[in-house]
Amino acid sequence: MAANRLYLGTRRYSSWSLRGWLAVRMAGLEVEEVVIPLAGGSTPAVKRAAPSGTVPYLEHDGLRIWDSLAIGEYCAEIAPGLWPAERGRRAWARAVAAEMHSGFRELRIAMPMNLGGHFPGRGRTEGSLADIARIEAVWAECLATHGGPFLFGEDFTLADAFYAPVCARFITWEAELSATSRAYIAAVRAHPLVDQWYRDALAEPPEWRLPKYEDPA
Amino acid sequence: MAANRLYLGTRRYSSWSLRGWLAVRMAGLEVEEVVIPLAGGSTPAVKRAAPSGTVPYLEHDGLRIWDSLAIGEYCAEIAPGLWPAERGRRAWARAVAAEMHSGFRELRIAMPMNLGGHFPGRGRTEGSLADIARIEAVWAECLATHGGPFLFGEDFTLADAFYAPVCARFITWEAELSATSRAYIAAVRAHPLVDQWYRDALAEPPEWRLPKYEDPA
Repeated sequence: MAANRLYLGTRRYSSWSLRGWLAVRMAGLEVEEVVIPLAGGSTPAVKRAAPSGTVPYLEHDGLRIWDSLAIGEYCAEIAPGLWPAERGRRAWARAVAAEMHSGFRELRIAMPMNLGGHFPGRGRTEGSLADIARIEAVWAECLATHGGPFLFGEDFTLADAFYAPVCARFITWEAELSATSRAYIAAVRAHPLVDQWYRDALAEPPEWRLPKYEDPA
Repeated sequence: MAANRLYLGTRRYSSWSLRGWLAVRMAGLEVEEVVIPLAGGSTPAVKRAAPSGTVPYLEHDGLRIWDSLAIGEYCAEIAPGLWPAERGRRAWARAVAAEMHSGFRELRIAMPMNLGGHFPGRGRTEGSLADIARIEAVWAECLATHGGPFLFGEDFTLADAFYAPVCARFITWEAELSATSRAYIAAVRAHPLVDQWYRDALAEPPEWRLPKYEDPA
């Protein structure tokens, strides 16, 4: 029988890996985690491991599933509760997650994820600020409608998993945010799975650090 | 009761709109189609209409669903058969569609969709050629495993809907492709819904044409 494996990039930097890992752990899949150090993009090792040359990449039950959103949907079919149970909320949650999946490119470029990094006030480009304004609007509407602490209410869903790396960016770069956004980020940061990812990331070998993400000046 | 509406961009150019429209039509949802002329990006009219400032955007049954992939998943919950019925194939199809949803940016930039345009041999950058090679590998594996004519066999699924705009790009730009890819493109182009979109696109007002997409020199 084929092994069950989840391939990840350096936890400190790989925002997509965090999303896929959260989905797999929320669903309780038992997988061996294989971390491949990144080098600021795909690497020969990632290309050898994953069909799309990207992480996260899941091998499970004889299936090969690349892409964080496909991994999320796969996990949601196995375990209940990863998406909101009500059809309308589920559609909304998918719109919120999918908007992150294909968008906010300016933010991703200007404020890369770097857990443990601290670059207050930097990365504020016209494009990243526009992305941040849209993200805050998405969050505010979800939180006001569903009452928080997470986007769709009491439960941490895949929509939150998709924005967990955004929360991490906002912590590192100290984006200027509303009190509502700051409370949401605190709730995500305190989630046990997110906290475990942080702890694992901060314990990674120093030689995996990439200067381009550590000194954004 | 709120109207059911699907907001689209200029059919000739809006690759994302084609994906969402195919999903809605595959599911048989009855919606009023509202086409907003594009201007090479979002426009004030799109920003007024859609929460994310992007098309496609679906208002259905009192719900607001932006993003093509969220629209696809919503439609797949309403109508059977939009994804493959078997769990493993469905996971594969979602990986294939999601890879398109977040990737192939170089191809999108170098070879924008322009139904009716004809720019043979142009747009061949290092990045677009790498994207094309990966797309051909995805297609070849799906077609060899499932026997064609579509990616997951006899039925046109959301995976095909997500690559329909890629097929349209390859027709316009005459990308150099394998015989397998060319046969697949012909099957997609001949699908009744894709054909209807082409006919509607070619009947759009000439004043909706955008010079930047009509003369790529």
